[in-house]
Amino acid sequence: MKGFPIVKSRRVRSSPYTSRIEKQGVTAYTVYNHMLLPAAFGSLEDSCNHLKKNVQVWDVAAERQVEISGKDASKLVQLMTCRDLSKSKIGRCYYCPLIDGDGNLVNDPVILKLAEDRWWISIADSDVIFFAKGLASGNNFDVEIFEPNVDILAIQGPKSFDLMEKIFGKKIKELKFFGFDYFNFKGVKHLIARSGWSKQGGFEVYVENTKSGLDLYDELFKVGKEFDVKPGCPNLIERIESGLLSYGNDFDNQDNPFECGFEKYVHLDSDVNFLGKEKLIKIKKDGIKKKLMGIQLDTNKINLTKSLDIKDENGSFIGELRSACYSPHFKKVIGIAMINEPYCKASMAGKLEIEGNSFTVKVCDLPFI
Amino acid sequence: MKGFPIVKSRRVRSSPYTSRIEKQGVTAYTVYNHMLLPAAFGSLEDSCNHLKKNVQVWDVAAERQVEISGKDASKLVQLMTCRDLSKSKIGRCYYCPLIDGDGNLVNDPVILKLAEDRWWISIADSDVIFFAKGLASGNNFDVEIFEPNVDILAIQGPKSFDLMEKIFGKKIKELKFFGFDYFNFKGVKHLIARSGWSKQGGFEVYVENTKSGLDLYDELFKVGKEFDVKPGCPNLIERIESGLLSYGNDFDNQDNPFECGFEKYVHLDSDVNFLGKEKLIKIKKDGIKKKLMGIQLDTNKINLTKSLDIKDENGSFIGELRSACYSPHFKKVIGIAMINEPYCKASMAGKLEIEGNSFTVKVCDLPFI
Repeated sequence: MKGFPIVKSRRVRSSPYTSRIEKQGVTAYTVYNHMLLPAAFGSLEDSCNHLKKNVQVWDVAAERQVEISGKDASKLVQLMTCRDLSKSKIGRCYYCPLIDGDGNLVNDPVILKLAEDRWWISIADSDVIFFAKGLASGNNFDVEIFEPNVDILAIQGPKSFDLMEKIFGKKIKELKFFGFDYFNFKGVKHLIARSGWSKQGGFEVYVENTKSGLDLYDELFKVGKEFDVKPGCPNLIERIESGLLSYGNDFDNQDNPFECGFEKYVHLDSDVNFLGKEKLIKIKKDGIKKKLMGIQLDTNKINLTKSLDIKDENGSFIGELRSACYSPHFKKVIGIAMINEPYCKASMAGKLEIEGNSFTVKVCDLPFI
Repeated sequence: MKGFPIVKSRRVRSSPYTSRIEKQGVTAYTVYNHMLLPAAFGSLEDSCNHLKKNVQVWDVAAERQVEISGKDASKLVQLMTCRDLSKSKIGRCYYCPLIDGDGNLVNDPVILKLAEDRWWISIADSDVIFFAKGLASGNNFDVEIFEPNVDILAIQGPKSFDLMEKIFGKKIKELKFFGFDYFNFKGVKHLIARSGWSKQGGFEVYVENTKSGLDLYDELFKVGKEFDVKPGCPNLIERIESGLLSYGNDFDNQDNPFECGFEKYVHLDSDVNFLGKEKLIKIKKDGIKKKLMGIQLDTNKINLTKSLDIKDENGSFIGELRSACYSPHFKKVIGIAMINEPYCKASMAGKLEIEGNSFTVKVCDLPFI
């Protein structure tokens, strides 16, 4: 893969698995939560095909945790998200949009309820720890907030179930989607969730014991040979085809959850107290002016390095393409775009210019598959 | 420069100047505030020498601003920093450690007082915006908090004064260190501060009008020919020699301002209210257990990609090397390390292993020059 090299430093952290993935052929990085996150192992198409059929092990240590514990932990966690967590259960993961006082998005983590007074917020790429610290201090909450030493390994793909069973035994297949439990590996306990940033199925191991995590990493590749295990990473093609949204790419702190299709996680009728609730009630009443939509382009190549303006027939701005890839499945370019009213409806169309060439953009619903 | 390519995306933003610096020979990037920050234009040594003698133009758009305005703006800004800002003046920049409720560092921005009720926090690499939003909400402050469209150009080096005079007139030479004022460029007003992340003198242009900023960028290179102007970026060698600290590299949210040598910005005797004040009073009373120190190594090469443990004679951990480079000026490797008591004193020594070779580490005071 071509491009400019990234300089590693203490500020742009490596993970415990970095030396392994570099031996295994990582070809590009991105930076996520101040940490290196592998972005490619050779061809994205080949990796996508492999992920859909087999099993991959991903270094997703960059998915950092914010631990919130103490007497007011649940109050603080609830204050940050518009999803009603009052009936949440220990041992479950919850996908939760985090919302600021303006009703806009701060992050879209998966939140793990470890105990009634102890939570892990498994964050996308923004410093949720400082949002939590600011809120805790301003509200005089009795909580502890810190980043624990957790470096996640994801095992993704349809064969991840058989591979994980070989290492952790039958019980791991009983984990329900977004459930988690503790499993032993050579005498060391690991929190494992049935989750991950693909729609191909799999697990995430929340590695706290680094040495055991490295042993597990090696064991996954040893035992995984029969399943054609390969190193991998969140795959741009697979995640766009599946409609998995990315904070910072598809939406950010300028967007609200209704604009991003998160309605089912916005519990305005609940009794719980969360930030931005009144703003969201008003936004819902007034209606939104823009919405995240899928788009399709009849071309076979795109390398989106920043957002691109989508225009109408007269050249007026109607939206912004934020992520895109060529999809071998759809045999065209697909992407995720924030589209203004009244164009944010399936079957609307616009124009996009890429390196001097003009393309017709077809708007469609998300997810694609 | 060798290394793994960084993938550009909307989440890892380019700046308005990116296409220009890529034509001009940028050879590596780092990521800073979710944005590309150039890290090298060929040899760091050559760039360092050039910076010390001539003038460079830097794309430091990654130094993002957090704008805080409104009735309670000053209260919020003061709440975030241990530096007493009660006598601060409009038109001045203030280097301010930001502190959380535990007395630890959140960031070390330069804060610009734009008006009595309007501030820009020019941040290092952490999401101060969410810290500010959390605090504002928890304290019910009447403020607006957002990231304005500002992409800084830095003009650094001893000849920056003559170059800037040619473009902005004599008045720009009257700017005092850490003062700022507004200057016209072809009819567009720009906020310019006498500041920058080097000790070689210079200015930072807070570009709000992107088009005018691009024109200015080109003009700087046209007019700058006679001063041997070159593109550049914060230079690892120059900044370590000068003892300019880097949040995320040399210190982070695990460290307090006393450990980092920021005593003169910690105003515990003032009347002002800031977060972590009681914690800092206690830390001062109890004394610190570790301190940022300079170190010297008798070798002529180092490529520090993560922190390295420093040990005593018996192999026990005594500190952590966090930044380092070969300094042509000192003709040895110099670095910045967090060293435990009682080793955090000039003339103490330890051992460091780099790729199987053991080196003696000499502890010294900061800054080196």
